[in-house]
Amino acid sequence: MRIRRLLLPYINIFGFVAMVSLFGMARFAVAADPLGSWNEGAAKQSILEFVERVTREGSPAFVPSAERVAVFDNDGTLWPEAPLPFQAAFVFDELRRRAPLEPELADDPFVQAALQGDLSKLLAGKNHDGLMHVIGVTHAGMTTDEFDQRVNDWLATAKHPRFEKPYSELTYQPMQELLVYLRLKGFKTFIVSGGGADFMRVWSERVYGIPPENVVGSMWQARFELRDGLPVLVKTMDHLFVDDKEGKPVGIHQFIGRRPIACFGNSDGDQAMLEYTTIGNPRASFGLIVHHTDAEREYAYDANPQSSGKLTTALTRADECGWTVVDMKVDWQKIWSDPAGAPSEGVALSLVGKWLAEDIDSAGVIDLAQSTLEFSADGAVSGSSAVNRFQGQAKVDHNSCTFGPLAMTRRAGPPALMDQESKFMAALQRVVQYRIAETGLLFLIDAEGTDVLRFSKMEN
Amino acid sequence: MRIRRLLLPYINIFGFVAMVSLFGMARFAVAADPLGSWNEGAAKQSILEFVERVTREGSPAFVPSAERVAVFDNDGTLWPEAPLPFQAAFVFDELRRRAPLEPELADDPFVQAALQGDLSKLLAGKNHDGLMHVIGVTHAGMTTDEFDQRVNDWLATAKHPRFEKPYSELTYQPMQELLVYLRLKGFKTFIVSGGGADFMRVWSERVYGIPPENVVGSMWQARFELRDGLPVLVKTMDHLFVDDKEGKPVGIHQFIGRRPIACFGNSDGDQAMLEYTTIGNPRASFGLIVHHTDAEREYAYDANPQSSGKLTTALTRADECGWTVVDMKVDWQKIWSDPAGAPSEGVALSLVGKWLAEDIDSAGVIDLAQSTLEFSADGAVSGSSAVNRFQGQAKVDHNSCTFGPLAMTRRAGPPALMDQESKFMAALQRVVQYRIAETGLLFLIDAEGTDVLRFSKMEN
Repeated sequence: MRIRRLLLPYINIFGFVAMVSLFGMARFAVAADPLGSWNEGAAKQSILEFVERVTREGSPAFVPSAERVAVFDNDGTLWPEAPLPFQAAFVFDELRRRAPLEPELADDPFVQAALQGDLSKLLAGKNHDGLMHVIGVTHAGMTTDEFDQRVNDWLATAKHPRFEKPYSELTYQPMQELLVYLRLKGFKTFIVSGGGADFMRVWSERVYGIPPENVVGSMWQARFELRDGLPVLVKTMDHLFVDDKEGKPVGIHQFIGRRPIACFGNSDGDQAMLEYTTIGNPRASFGLIVHHTDAEREYAYDANPQSSGKLTTALTRADECGWTVVDMKVDWQKIWSDPAGAPSEGVALSLVGKWLAEDIDSAGVIDLAQSTLEFSADGAVSGSSAVNRFQGQAKVDHNSCTFGPLAMTRRAGPPALMDQESKFMAALQRVVQYRIAETGLLFLIDAEGTDVLRFSKMEN
Repeated sequence: MRIRRLLLPYINIFGFVAMVSLFGMARFAVAADPLGSWNEGAAKQSILEFVERVTREGSPAFVPSAERVAVFDNDGTLWPEAPLPFQAAFVFDELRRRAPLEPELADDPFVQAALQGDLSKLLAGKNHDGLMHVIGVTHAGMTTDEFDQRVNDWLATAKHPRFEKPYSELTYQPMQELLVYLRLKGFKTFIVSGGGADFMRVWSERVYGIPPENVVGSMWQARFELRDGLPVLVKTMDHLFVDDKEGKPVGIHQFIGRRPIACFGNSDGDQAMLEYTTIGNPRASFGLIVHHTDAEREYAYDANPQSSGKLTTALTRADECGWTVVDMKVDWQKIWSDPAGAPSEGVALSLVGKWLAEDIDSAGVIDLAQSTLEFSADGAVSGSSAVNRFQGQAKVDHNSCTFGPLAMTRRAGPPALMDQESKFMAALQRVVQYRIAETGLLFLIDAEGTDVLRFSKMEN
């Protein structure tokens, strides 16, 4: 255990005792709630207890970090899937956008059916040939770069019909907090979705902090070509892999190669991967189903969804399998996430975590004295000036960042450290903006646009 | 920039000047060679220069860590592929092991051909039906857990016919150093191999430090089943994906979803992924071909390999594409890696890196004073006692670990820090063993078996 032996000599030997305030000596127990948007209850408690069991050193159920694989369904689990899965909205919007530009689409009966909203024609037949055809028209026959661009263009303009926001701003705040919390606890977070891998990888890192290589989804094959000497990958309709139902554990095996210990879903399509994660797993494991029960704030459905997301057999199995069932209306204090950079009561996900000061007012820092700053998702900040600890609130909105009053302990320390402390705290109060550089360094900036503090991210 | 301001007050104000030795004040420039098994030359230099260009803050070619994807072929690039690819040796050894136990194999003409070494029968036909069949017999029709067990059993007993060592101990030390070096520099390292993903994932983390989710390889599909209520994945021969030649960039796209900036291969099978990595890439990029030129220490081949690994067109393209060509005989000072835990002049890969002391002789450490210890792959150690820096050599052999004489700077510091320094250095000299716990903590142990030092791994 670490002990604070450094300060004692100064207090006892060098006569700083008089400087030690009689007040404020207790160190704050800084423990901001990592799941602040979850109401207290059995669901939240089951998550916290599981994570504690598998991550606490010495716990009989301890799982090494390398094996802490957590898999998340996307549609209905991290964002909605009503009135249509968002990727289906992309298909229809793309056909509408392209029809006037590509006259040959007028001769395509399935495209015309889609444009006229004739879903029965698209869904006819065992293999839903019409639907697969229009998905192919919008997802194949172009290079991967062209496809990425189309998805980005669509996301920048399309809005959800009911909530009237860009689709990528309609993620669930409680699940975003859960993703951050698990990663802070050494988990690797993966998406395992029936949606298209290529579709999700365009925005998964920006929206969920999940990099492309951690996205497992449905896919057709691509084909490698050199065009005028330049390599391209052309999206084809060969060799479909459907990452849904029994395909999900298969996808997990093929793409991750390691059995998860935590699985989060919302429909019967997630049942097989919930079973694969939690039944007969030699490791401690956890399963959770998001039950959509909140027609007012989002949607309420299980056996009869508007389109995808049917939840019947998986719900029946939840009890015997020990899966946590989230009652969205009861368990979630807040539904919608504030996307990074948008106005927020909390802070951007990229800021969350502990930062080490590397520079204060361009004068460096003392090598052995750590001045730190930690942001929680709910806007709480805490840290250490090297001698004392402080806590308070940050207000983050787009790129602006300001700190409210910071409460501090009042220990005394050697002069060099006290000097650094006063400069550090004064600099924090001057901050009005932040930016995170490509290198991952955090810069806090004053009203003149000067970098007053530079931080590097600390390990968790 | 960090500056050492803490010590000055003590030296100047508190009268410790007399304690400052007149000798040894210079701080060591500790820069152990990260590629110690590479001879100096253009190949080594090109690697170091590329890594510096893309990782140095402020460099015009800087690439953020999230996008530093490096892909490695396996057979012939990280370990040999002669006289046969090692996975083919597994196939033949498995057939020999199973034939006496499974009489039905006696009726299988292709199995009999394999047992009799009749390669022409196996390779006949456009699709090499015989070979695919015996691969299927040894790779499908069993659960993934059963397959993993068979690969592990084989690795534990099989030996390479020429080098008479277990196959997984025949990796190339220069490439192992390169993997570690790139990861220390913020790269994500992936295997992209024509070999089977399931075959490699059994040992990739242990042998290369590459976790299963970073292994892309050839694969058939698996099938999810509940057997007596327990989930299993059964390996099938459906839906073959061949991760070779033009399949490699496809595999990179499907499994990683991000274009690499560095690619390492050794044969024409790697040409497409070298092209995909280096031609028209908006990021700075790097390609390298290992040319097998050392018949004495390993093998010498290009156009006419013993089995796989033909290198003709990729070698022709290397010059115009700016790919580095490694001349194994000239560029590699050492060929074979010392597997972790085996007798070694260097140290186990798991030790390499920088460690922070958390406990010294069960008495904790001073919160603000970092005592560190850094192992290089070649056995060099360096570190800081909080006040002074030291360097020297470690000797690591299986679980034993001892330190030679450690040269130190001789600054003076506050009494509490000097006290910690003397305890830290004395503890190091008592160490005879080490172990790395499941939690990732490093324990250094004395001759009585007592943990005298505990370290946590520091970020790079």
